[in-house]
Amino acid sequence: MTTTRAEPQPADFADVRTTNLAVVLRHLRAHGPSSRAAIAASTGLTKATVSSLTGDLIAHRLLRETGLSGNRIGRPATALTLDGSAYAAIGIQVSPGQLTALAVDYAGDQLLLWHRAFEPRRMNSEIVALAQRAASRVRQHGRHLLGLTVAVPSPDLRDLIAGSLRQKDLVVTVAHHAVLAAVAEQRQAGRPGGDLAYISGAAGLEAGLILDGHVRRGGRLGGFTLGPAGSPTLQDQAGIETLVKRALPDFDPSALIDLGPAVEQVAARARAGDAVALATLAHTGSYLGQGLAVLTNLINPEVMILGDHFATLAEWLIPAARAELSRHGKASAVRVVASTLGLHAAALGGAVAHLDQVDIGRIPQPVG
Amino acid sequence: MTTTRAEPQPADFADVRTTNLAVVLRHLRAHGPSSRAAIAASTGLTKATVSSLTGDLIAHRLLRETGLSGNRIGRPATALTLDGSAYAAIGIQVSPGQLTALAVDYAGDQLLLWHRAFEPRRMNSEIVALAQRAASRVRQHGRHLLGLTVAVPSPDLRDLIAGSLRQKDLVVTVAHHAVLAAVAEQRQAGRPGGDLAYISGAAGLEAGLILDGHVRRGGRLGGFTLGPAGSPTLQDQAGIETLVKRALPDFDPSALIDLGPAVEQVAARARAGDAVALATLAHTGSYLGQGLAVLTNLINPEVMILGDHFATLAEWLIPAARAELSRHGKASAVRVVASTLGLHAAALGGAVAHLDQVDIGRIPQPVG
Repeated sequence: MTTTRAEPQPADFADVRTTNLAVVLRHLRAHGPSSRAAIAASTGLTKATVSSLTGDLIAHRLLRETGLSGNRIGRPATALTLDGSAYAAIGIQVSPGQLTALAVDYAGDQLLLWHRAFEPRRMNSEIVALAQRAASRVRQHGRHLLGLTVAVPSPDLRDLIAGSLRQKDLVVTVAHHAVLAAVAEQRQAGRPGGDLAYISGAAGLEAGLILDGHVRRGGRLGGFTLGPAGSPTLQDQAGIETLVKRALPDFDPSALIDLGPAVEQVAARARAGDAVALATLAHTGSYLGQGLAVLTNLINPEVMILGDHFATLAEWLIPAARAELSRHGKASAVRVVASTLGLHAAALGGAVAHLDQVDIGRIPQPVG
Repeated sequence: MTTTRAEPQPADFADVRTTNLAVVLRHLRAHGPSSRAAIAASTGLTKATVSSLTGDLIAHRLLRETGLSGNRIGRPATALTLDGSAYAAIGIQVSPGQLTALAVDYAGDQLLLWHRAFEPRRMNSEIVALAQRAASRVRQHGRHLLGLTVAVPSPDLRDLIAGSLRQKDLVVTVAHHAVLAAVAEQRQAGRPGGDLAYISGAAGLEAGLILDGHVRRGGRLGGFTLGPAGSPTLQDQAGIETLVKRALPDFDPSALIDLGPAVEQVAARARAGDAVALATLAHTGSYLGQGLAVLTNLINPEVMILGDHFATLAEWLIPAARAELSRHGKASAVRVVASTLGLHAAALGGAVAHLDQVDIGRIPQPVG
């Protein structure tokens, strides 16, 4: 499919510099420590431009010099390497009954991972309190805090939370948790371009989409229904709650807030060959495949990633989903894989969303 | 939703110039004839840069000078206006039993609109012959041909046609007809940014998506099914063939190749208050609404446009679709409108796709 750009803005020198800063950062992320000359040679930028750009990045503590670079003929040159330990960002994930706060720095190191149970009626104040504790902890460690993102399962929560989190000294965004999980997967994969779909079972049945590597969309995949009013939805058939209820007839998941332990139990029974668990997983997987077929037909993402609770059960869900995709003639066209990011991918993506701004050359104010 | 850019390329001066050429063209498209000084004032570019850019565009016959500009204090300045009559592009739309060829120039004037019936087994050679006739006609009129796009309902046809149309003197692309129709709608609306979904009933039930004004995706919306193997698809419920069969029990649409006349007949009967036609339209509209709910949940486009045959029946389909969207709590969030581009939107979009390249500053080789 050919694509065209959105309305162009005049390209002034700030734009050029931003783009070139991003090019240098990408080069170092991809190739590791490199000399200024090596950066110039492989980016097509002049040595003078590279010196000016790297000087700027060193001043911002995003690069540092690391002795001598081996991979060069003739006079050894000083190599530059990504640092970024001066900068960090926070993601807060709102899951049923639990808040997760996660902070990572630009170098990719995890600074904190906290869990808090909360009462639904106190959700907002709990989020604000957790955000403030996490922010001050990150700053105590001398990190410049680039921003904080709250990952929410429903857009309805967005304005509510954004309103109560507004603070002058912190960039706060609120976004869809499946979309943020997709952002984390994209950084994990290290492929900035391309299409990706993340399927979450953590709160209903949600999809996060990344198209052309940068356009982000997402929402309720589980809302699909086809039939007269009252017909079952995709979530009724393939949602985690339904799966747990059917696979574990002997205990009542409506008593549970966090379905994680019940999902582990389903996996254990399937591994032990329990017929009810296996039949339920086959049913869920095949309906999940019908949801994936819709995504494939409309958007045709290169990869569809089963996340969180679905990843725990992927060894049973993926074969059934693939069989359904074949029925739609789509199995060959698409990759379906299990997420390796666990249950906190949305929190990670929330932090990554701010670090991504540095990747594209929007470097923060100098520190200190 | 925040977005980030795909991997940046080094911004060299060619990129800057391309972007700035696009800015000047956009300004003139939006504001009409303007002086160089007015362009500089409103784009933030220097007068020297504007003079150089407009000189280039005049040399390429994309601009011409038009006497004196009124809207300026002091010494009157020469105004510049878009010309573009030197450049044209062609779209060929493959519909059941019929090929449509349409050519437009960069100024927006239609140069030709041809229809040809064809036998399915001769499709490929008919497309090639029609493409060559249209190309030579456009060139006879002294237009520089920017390219030709074939709009096909199925990706399976893409490689086949692209292969047989490969010619050294013509840029040929093959793309999904609903996506190209969306491209035509976008240019018609004059809104370069934003999201748009075009729903086509011309060949199955297809959707064309434009996201963030430039990312294009699309495919079979009608393939959506929810249930055990053999369950009806959205197309079984809301496709034009089903609608015609149910609304016109007295004649056999399988005998028809082009459903246009039958669709007009359905509209005539509905206008006359025919109960069967009205009930069928209500059924189709409500299932169409379930398809629109899928798009709204996943992508939430600002506007969803019912195209071609659906546009002919929009006055009955849209209220039923809206009622279904309300059932999903989505009616307020989205606009559903009827296309005004008729049955050849995909052919128009095929031509526009090449003209769009000029809009973004990819100006063609000088003519003659």
